[in-house]
Amino acid sequence: MNKPARTADMTPVKVTTGPLTGSRKVYTAPDAVPDLKVPFREIDLTPESGEPAVRVYDASGPYTDTAYEADVNRGLPRIREAWITERGGVETYEGRAIKPEDNGDVTGRHAARAFPITHEPHRAASPAQSQKSPLTQLEYARAGIITKEMIFVAHRENLGRAAALERAGAALADGESFGADIPVHITPEFVRDEIARGRAIIPANINHPELEPMIIGRNFLVKINANIGNSAVTSSVEEEIDKMVWAIRWGADTVMDLSTGRNIHTTREWIIRNSPVPIGTVPIYQALEKVGGDPVKLSWEVYRDTLIEQCEQGVDYFTIHAGVRLRYVPLTAERVTGIVSRGGSIMAKWCLAHHRESFLYERFDEICDIMRAYDVSFSLGDGLRPGSIADANDRAQFAELETLGELTRIAWDKGCQVMIEGPGHVPMHKVKVNVEKQLQECGEAPFYTLGPLVTDIAPGYDHITSGIGAAMIGWFGTAMLCYVTPKEHLGLPNRDDVKTGVITYKIAAHAADLAKGHPAAQLRDDALSRARFEFRWYDQFNLSLDPDTARAFHDETLPKEAHKVAHFCSMCGPKFCSMEITREVRDYASKLNERQQGMQHMSEKFRDLGAEVYVPKT
Amino acid sequence: MNKPARTADMTPVKVTTGPLTGSRKVYTAPDAVPDLKVPFREIDLTPESGEPAVRVYDASGPYTDTAYEADVNRGLPRIREAWITERGGVETYEGRAIKPEDNGDVTGRHAARAFPITHEPHRAASPAQSQKSPLTQLEYARAGIITKEMIFVAHRENLGRAAALERAGAALADGESFGADIPVHITPEFVRDEIARGRAIIPANINHPELEPMIIGRNFLVKINANIGNSAVTSSVEEEIDKMVWAIRWGADTVMDLSTGRNIHTTREWIIRNSPVPIGTVPIYQALEKVGGDPVKLSWEVYRDTLIEQCEQGVDYFTIHAGVRLRYVPLTAERVTGIVSRGGSIMAKWCLAHHRESFLYERFDEICDIMRAYDVSFSLGDGLRPGSIADANDRAQFAELETLGELTRIAWDKGCQVMIEGPGHVPMHKVKVNVEKQLQECGEAPFYTLGPLVTDIAPGYDHITSGIGAAMIGWFGTAMLCYVTPKEHLGLPNRDDVKTGVITYKIAAHAADLAKGHPAAQLRDDALSRARFEFRWYDQFNLSLDPDTARAFHDETLPKEAHKVAHFCSMCGPKFCSMEITREVRDYASKLNERQQGMQHMSEKFRDLGAEVYVPKT
Repeated sequence: MNKPARTADMTPVKVTTGPLTGSRKVYTAPDAVPDLKVPFREIDLTPESGEPAVRVYDASGPYTDTAYEADVNRGLPRIREAWITERGGVETYEGRAIKPEDNGDVTGRHAARAFPITHEPHRAASPAQSQKSPLTQLEYARAGIITKEMIFVAHRENLGRAAALERAGAALADGESFGADIPVHITPEFVRDEIARGRAIIPANINHPELEPMIIGRNFLVKINANIGNSAVTSSVEEEIDKMVWAIRWGADTVMDLSTGRNIHTTREWIIRNSPVPIGTVPIYQALEKVGGDPVKLSWEVYRDTLIEQCEQGVDYFTIHAGVRLRYVPLTAERVTGIVSRGGSIMAKWCLAHHRESFLYERFDEICDIMRAYDVSFSLGDGLRPGSIADANDRAQFAELETLGELTRIAWDKGCQVMIEGPGHVPMHKVKVNVEKQLQECGEAPFYTLGPLVTDIAPGYDHITSGIGAAMIGWFGTAMLCYVTPKEHLGLPNRDDVKTGVITYKIAAHAADLAKGHPAAQLRDDALSRARFEFRWYDQFNLSLDPDTARAFHDETLPKEAHKVAHFCSMCGPKFCSMEITREVRDYASKLNERQQGMQHMSEKFRDLGAEVYVPKT
Repeated sequence: MNKPARTADMTPVKVTTGPLTGSRKVYTAPDAVPDLKVPFREIDLTPESGEPAVRVYDASGPYTDTAYEADVNRGLPRIREAWITERGGVETYEGRAIKPEDNGDVTGRHAARAFPITHEPHRAASPAQSQKSPLTQLEYARAGIITKEMIFVAHRENLGRAAALERAGAALADGESFGADIPVHITPEFVRDEIARGRAIIPANINHPELEPMIIGRNFLVKINANIGNSAVTSSVEEEIDKMVWAIRWGADTVMDLSTGRNIHTTREWIIRNSPVPIGTVPIYQALEKVGGDPVKLSWEVYRDTLIEQCEQGVDYFTIHAGVRLRYVPLTAERVTGIVSRGGSIMAKWCLAHHRESFLYERFDEICDIMRAYDVSFSLGDGLRPGSIADANDRAQFAELETLGELTRIAWDKGCQVMIEGPGHVPMHKVKVNVEKQLQECGEAPFYTLGPLVTDIAPGYDHITSGIGAAMIGWFGTAMLCYVTPKEHLGLPNRDDVKTGVITYKIAAHAADLAKGHPAAQLRDDALSRARFEFRWYDQFNLSLDPDTARAFHDETLPKEAHKVAHFCSMCGPKFCSMEITREVRDYASKLNERQQGMQHMSEKFRDLGAEVYVPKT
């Protein structure tokens, strides 16, 4: 269903609503906090299966809830508002006034309509007082306090697996975790402990109360991020809202708004107010727009102002390229592809032009203070990530990573949550050391990588070149995988590209969960494989990551309804089927087994009788 | 260009001809054998690059040669005919008459027109004589004789890399090969030695003289196979010829014809006569058709007759599921997905129905004798491969693999070339042991795997779930990767699916070559990355695995010709570009370098003067 919502000077905003084919939205609550509504998706199986519904993680927000009336002009329900105010430590204030340059000085018909509702922002109360109360999830965790966000994510991560594992008879996992340690059951206390250690984050700006909290860390389900955003040459506010809703529908756990064109503030406002997932940004992009696109004109003042603007809007994590130090810039000179990170090259240019150390590095303490006041998480950017196989794992990349480790410790001291961004383009044999070095340098802060692409030769298919690297790096311990779409290197993704990117990365993340030995990951594989084996076509479609495509592909050859219950498929045809034969194998084996048991029974009887060949008459 | 070729009772056969966008067909010959025409594809770069054309491997045959007039009614030139006859040891004979059941007793309008030209088959001469002369590539290799096929593949594998590596200044490889040992330059003697050891094969039936020889082995480029073939419910002879030409156009190194419907003999004849790549089949499929689709009715006599029929036609390798022994069948009873291999389940059913050991296992010596006489290579089938994550690496799978090792040694003793088929569905952490066990059990005979799929939950995207596993297993040492298309588990692939499958597997194979440390694999990545960095859009498109898709994606956002020479792309827009900034970094670094050299120069001068602060007047 596409739901139009009229706006004054925007074309109607259409977002896709309604459940995925074969799925139902459900909410459950942990026993201890019955007022929480933790969302899941349940896939009902056909009655003939004799199996209960399969519960899966659901990032899609209320849009897939048939009981929810979506209205993008109103925004999502502000479910966390009460949690944030009731635990105290925050104040509400007037907030920064929107300036013309926030939207690239756009005027007249080019100006997108502002989001119709304004909310006064929160920030940490009385920052001057010496006895600071906790504000960030990290500070609460360290103080031994379990927040509602922690309870929410603990319940969410479990997927009700206690019951499912009991049915399955045993934990199925036999993975190789490379030091990750995922418990069979996630408790709120486990969540708290992981956050306190800096090994996981809940990106959750106190000004984004629409958020359904989620956790990013090596000992939880591997997450994926989808990038959206307009640029100076293409796309509109409407398209970006639609893309966000579309991306989470297919499973994006977070969304980064990388807009660089006009209406950048307004676009972001619409997105955040309508997003149930954490929104990340790269604030230097907007700062650059404010100085007319010239990196040389950037200043701490413009950047600081942009941070506060975005903190007040409710951005949940900021990519900050504070590791691009002046001294590292020349290390990239001999590279095949130099500096490919947009943020990295902006900062490199600034450093060179002023022949000064990066203001992001020099002002890092102040950045921490700002972000801490809103609980915006750091995503420490890898501005010197390799842009080609030739440049992978070079000195520039690793020098920056070492600095990110230094900055992680500073941010932690300031009470900020931190994750670390990683590459990029890396051949398979160089992937693992990226995780090992990141864990070591950055004290196990969550790793968040872009791919990596394992070869450079397939533009147009970089969701696949990078999906290979993403699955591997996820297995080795990366907590979140930033998707790459088929358009990477070629253009901005459209709706179809977004879906392809998200599904590809759901595959990579799930493959990683399986290989790590996540205790419940295999439940879905097994349910689908049983459906496949038993020719329950609808169950096979509905259990897949993309039921519509699975069904459409099947129907290309066998479109009739009857074929969806047929015990054959188009590969072998109706005369013969390997799966049918396996039933006979089972009959045979069970008879064999009976016979063996029968023989064993005879043998035992024989032994009972004294193992004599001639039994004396009794 | 689509070239129609009229036939009497087939619709016109259209196959795609002409070069790939931006490429030229070239033939070169090794100095020692100037009459060989070894095919390559060369990608010309724009003059501004200052770089020579990039030479890549080319499996596409004459179809991409503008000088070649394709005519599927005539078939390809029989380039190896003279090689085969001139080295002796073969005889020409009348051959087996085609029987109605070879084509499923098809009659009337359902019967496809026979290929218009017939050739008498060759076989090993005087099989009774005690002093057998060599016939198979393995026998020649063991006898110390280098065949033209070996010279051809040595030249082909090198890709003219001596010159390219000299230009690059150094071997670029720094991979992890897990025991593979790829020389910087492939010599015919190296090829001979690898074949003699059984570590590589050249699948090349003496009745397939149209073949451009290729080699499959761990110490060569990783190869890919594409499956085509009709089934009882879908597709026609014309479509299958078109798919074969289409698959090799995008890079399939071998093609398996898995047809199971009517016209099975005729379809295969058209395919082989028009195929420059090795054709593989699963003979039990046709044998099953001959007995009306009932596995119980299969017999050694029908199977033997089918083998000879296909040997005479020129099939280059046979999948033979001789490792499915009666005693292993019950091992699959507790599996989630039982036996999913079609050949495996056919044989399991036969074994159970007759309660007898498989005739493929019992008659293995005789099978070897037949295949040896035509140099048909074994592809020992993994009939008990896992069909789901749950069943990976179980006792049934590995018991069969051990038997395949036993059979490998028998086939080698008989002079036959052998490769070994592998799974299937395997989570990432269980992939590596598959290669290790295969190498150990089967004496390093080339491994040939289907994927593996690293999760079961993405029907519709199984090219991706399996591409991940394929890249990894290729890296670990698998010699050939059998593609999986998006339609896997759902239907038979159409033309688009074939292309998607082939490109995905070219990515996997190339990623594996890079990670193994193939000495020349990175040349193409580097050429493309330089093109990307320098905004040579046409070069970037043309160097990619699929130039048309890369260009189409770019043009969706920036369609104008001028944008193809523009120094920006749609991601960042014209005002800012990270790659542009890198140029400035280089200027800076080079000035820094000059200054440092200047300071070093001063410092050296200082030392030359005795390193005294006060220099005495002279």
